[in-house]
Amino acid sequence: MSYTLMSQLFVRTLREDPADAEMPSHKWLIRAGYIRRVAPGIYTWLPLGLRVLAKVESIIRDEMAAIGAQEVHFPALLPREPYEQTHRWTEYGPSLFRLKDRKGADLLLGPTHEEMFTILVKDLCSSYKDLPLILFQIQTKYRDEARPRAGVIRGREFIMKDSYSFNVDDQGLAQAYDQHRKAYQAVMERLGLEYVIVQAMSGAMGGSRSEEFLAVTPFGEDTFVRSAGGYAANVEAVRVAPAPECNCANAPAPRLVATPGASTIASLVDAVNRVAPRPDREWQASDTLKNVVFMRSDPTGQRHPLVIGLPGDRDVDPKRLEAAISPDTIEPFTASDFLNYPQLVAGYIGPVRLDDPPTKILGPGSVDDLTYLTDPRVSKGSSWISGANLADHHLVGLVTGRDFVSDGSIDVAEVRSGDPAPDGSGPLELARGVEMGHIFQLGRKYADALGLKVLDANGKLVTVTMGSYGIGVTRAVAMVAETTCDERGLAWPKNIAPYDLVIVVAGKGADLMEAAMMLANDLAVEGVDLVVDDRLVSPGVKFADAELIGFPTSVVVGRGLKDGLIELRDRASGDARSVPLTEAVAAILQQVQS
Amino acid sequence: MSYTLMSQLFVRTLREDPADAEMPSHKWLIRAGYIRRVAPGIYTWLPLGLRVLAKVESIIRDEMAAIGAQEVHFPALLPREPYEQTHRWTEYGPSLFRLKDRKGADLLLGPTHEEMFTILVKDLCSSYKDLPLILFQIQTKYRDEARPRAGVIRGREFIMKDSYSFNVDDQGLAQAYDQHRKAYQAVMERLGLEYVIVQAMSGAMGGSRSEEFLAVTPFGEDTFVRSAGGYAANVEAVRVAPAPECNCANAPAPRLVATPGASTIASLVDAVNRVAPRPDREWQASDTLKNVVFMRSDPTGQRHPLVIGLPGDRDVDPKRLEAAISPDTIEPFTASDFLNYPQLVAGYIGPVRLDDPPTKILGPGSVDDLTYLTDPRVSKGSSWISGANLADHHLVGLVTGRDFVSDGSIDVAEVRSGDPAPDGSGPLELARGVEMGHIFQLGRKYADALGLKVLDANGKLVTVTMGSYGIGVTRAVAMVAETTCDERGLAWPKNIAPYDLVIVVAGKGADLMEAAMMLANDLAVEGVDLVVDDRLVSPGVKFADAELIGFPTSVVVGRGLKDGLIELRDRASGDARSVPLTEAVAAILQQVQS
Repeated sequence: MSYTLMSQLFVRTLREDPADAEMPSHKWLIRAGYIRRVAPGIYTWLPLGLRVLAKVESIIRDEMAAIGAQEVHFPALLPREPYEQTHRWTEYGPSLFRLKDRKGADLLLGPTHEEMFTILVKDLCSSYKDLPLILFQIQTKYRDEARPRAGVIRGREFIMKDSYSFNVDDQGLAQAYDQHRKAYQAVMERLGLEYVIVQAMSGAMGGSRSEEFLAVTPFGEDTFVRSAGGYAANVEAVRVAPAPECNCANAPAPRLVATPGASTIASLVDAVNRVAPRPDREWQASDTLKNVVFMRSDPTGQRHPLVIGLPGDRDVDPKRLEAAISPDTIEPFTASDFLNYPQLVAGYIGPVRLDDPPTKILGPGSVDDLTYLTDPRVSKGSSWISGANLADHHLVGLVTGRDFVSDGSIDVAEVRSGDPAPDGSGPLELARGVEMGHIFQLGRKYADALGLKVLDANGKLVTVTMGSYGIGVTRAVAMVAETTCDERGLAWPKNIAPYDLVIVVAGKGADLMEAAMMLANDLAVEGVDLVVDDRLVSPGVKFADAELIGFPTSVVVGRGLKDGLIELRDRASGDARSVPLTEAVAAILQQVQS
Repeated sequence: MSYTLMSQLFVRTLREDPADAEMPSHKWLIRAGYIRRVAPGIYTWLPLGLRVLAKVESIIRDEMAAIGAQEVHFPALLPREPYEQTHRWTEYGPSLFRLKDRKGADLLLGPTHEEMFTILVKDLCSSYKDLPLILFQIQTKYRDEARPRAGVIRGREFIMKDSYSFNVDDQGLAQAYDQHRKAYQAVMERLGLEYVIVQAMSGAMGGSRSEEFLAVTPFGEDTFVRSAGGYAANVEAVRVAPAPECNCANAPAPRLVATPGASTIASLVDAVNRVAPRPDREWQASDTLKNVVFMRSDPTGQRHPLVIGLPGDRDVDPKRLEAAISPDTIEPFTASDFLNYPQLVAGYIGPVRLDDPPTKILGPGSVDDLTYLTDPRVSKGSSWISGANLADHHLVGLVTGRDFVSDGSIDVAEVRSGDPAPDGSGPLELARGVEMGHIFQLGRKYADALGLKVLDANGKLVTVTMGSYGIGVTRAVAMVAETTCDERGLAWPKNIAPYDLVIVVAGKGADLMEAAMMLANDLAVEGVDLVVDDRLVSPGVKFADAELIGFPTSVVVGRGLKDGLIELRDRASGDARSVPLTEAVAAILQQVQS
């Protein structure tokens, strides 16, 4: 065992923040010499960073081995064909790095490897006896992100642990999923991350059950909700419970009210409280039915209007909409679209027009058969104020199911703090996080597309059911940094730090250096992985660098030495204490191993 | 510690050779379930392969650490600009994988990282005190090889250890080079490879001193030469000693002889021995001067003929030519080129035409000033038979320096077994090998191009001098396999094998399985990394698979058990011996650790 001299270590700490730092971890990882930017979303790992990365990888490897997963390693450069067969060659859109080789063959840089694993297992397994099987890799992935972000939090080249489970039946899949869930919990614990498991949409991956592991941080780009009673979900995955049926069937017929200029919800509420007040209480935005129009393309490329009706106090959440309807197929409804559909009066759109008899404007049997999807809160029997499809007019007392019907339900309204949890576990709180892991029950989507079948115990060919499970490895490094750093720099947990400790030689005497080297030797023999800061710079610079780099423990060999004392500092707590040199090794070992 | 059950291990041995197997290692690595082809030159590493790869990486990491090299990790996806500055963006030609990102920016997949390391050190180092420095990475590289070959021997995606040294002066560079040379020798020894260090051309890398580490194998695609006296060189690097000056100045003037139809060397030798025999001995092909014409493009794209004159018993070696003249700038001389240069008569080209006075056809002052480069054997005063630039005619007794001169020397003739070593160390032997490593003194080429300077001890800016050093990691796995395998499969050295041993349960009795598991437990506790072949297949299949996979040691628990015996087999030697079960652990440990 040996130790490292700071004067030899390839690390240069920087005094200036990088211009593009969005998150503290990004700033500190750059300034402390862990990573270095090569291009947007593309980073080099320097010696300190690589040491941390290796420790995170080893934790993940460990937990994967514990569930019997076997490691393989796929190429990053992949042929087009398998991705063509699952349609992902096109579905991935501009996020996929595509290229051609010298013979003109299409290649891609793998964003994830479902296809390749499916084919491998298809090639090598033929019987139910070969299953269950869990394979994983820790591998470099590529996604041409539109907005690479925060250093290695969202990179275009990044390391992921991806694993895939193969089972003959749903029960086996459920078990593999559960094993991964537990393994991921263990990884999060060992990384020391505060995390939440949220229900997630399976999105482009297909499949059924799916959860995300989010590390909680105010700088996270993912919003999630949770209740005191234990509900947690990605906002995309929140399924609002349908409102109970109301009984407004005996309410008076809808009436037309003049609301000049009231083309916004706020001005509408204002207007109806003036011209059509109700006796018991004021009208609220939540009494109005807002109708938002989009244009949607069908598979043949034909464009059709899609109208979404939701309570006026809520907007359509773009991320929830994206999760419900492929963003490639939907676009805003333009001024020229309004010209083609004169029955839709901008600012005054509603499901019916009070002609005699009334004309259906939205939903089944409407003019031009316009598709109308409504929020789960627009329950049968509920009464609404909505546009009259007549400029400067609205209808009051429009009853769902009596005066209009929709083509179905859509759950894309924004979720708000205080909304009830769908499972009745209390009001929701909104919080932010970074997706660390994602577990999916893919089911038979990929096995079907690529023909992965095995013989079951009865000799019958059955399609294999699969799961897919990912953890962002480079992202995990950044998130550990993010959730432990402070205003002085990084403050690694002991099990992830690049070194156990630094011995700071705080002064110029040869006796100091000599004592430091002897101590370093003694500690190295005990298996402590350490750096001696032997540089010819001031103690102040060394202390600042020790804190910036985030050694969990600093040992200061300085002025106290003449009294036979060294100082022991703990980076995370800031505690410092003097220890006699004679007891130093024991005291340091105890602190390092605690 | 635990052990692995063969029934659970993700390995399926194959009975059929892959269709494209060119080398035994390729065949066995596929059949034994170590690697699997995804696309030409692109492979997946299966669990067994990944274990071997990790062991090879660890040996290399070890030896790099021993010379004080520090590990970093660069991205594979790189921006165009730095490669533009060193001209390699274009110089790499079709071997470079190029792509564009969603914003249209040019990217490449790194074939080697000189530029990136130079920029990193430029960014972080400013003083001679920061040097010397050696950085390395073990990283995935990409080259779009025209002919990917023999599995992972020549892949398009492959793992390389590349390191780079940075020094302020030549002496420092020489030292870093020497350190690497020793480290590479240590790596080759630990891999158990028979190797030779040959002088090499630095080629596209620029720079001066350069050597290759070749693993010797008859299937190698690189030819090298060596002498009993210790000379060794890549054929590209062989520098033929210039022949001593002759004294044919007093020889008779060249004379024109009719050689109808003798447009080949063989027919020419035949003809002159008939029409112009010499008294003492027959003319040989080596008495003729063959002139080979190419078209060469200058940097502006202008094409000029280039004529290479060499003894008629030798051809131009394409690889040696490529090393001397960039292959992108040279092409064959076509029939239409001959029309433009009527002074060149196909099949009868020579340096002069015997007009009165004689006309210079090739070399300085010739018609059209045609560039003429000659082999070192065409020494001053030497006499030749060469084309007369007249159909069906040759000149005999053409004396170098008297009758013609060339524009310079070029050393591209084929090297033959029996040729003298340039250093006088005896006749050369030709052999074949696979390039395992390459060490280069780059000098200041990259530092100049990218502006890497540091302040020296006198406060003066000096350009850093660099070295670049590579080892093919995935290739090393294949070469260890290649040089140890036999007709039954792989036979790994103990320090590189995926597992230390396999326990073959050779029979159906529960007692056999029980004894095997107990033994496995005892061995695992001792740190032995092992597999128990518990599958429900015949002992014959298990033995065949054990040999195919190449476990260094097999322990057979079978018929002998009733007499308290197990069998211990050594894969490499084929030795087998019975050992009492009571002494098994000790005997096995001794064999595993020997």
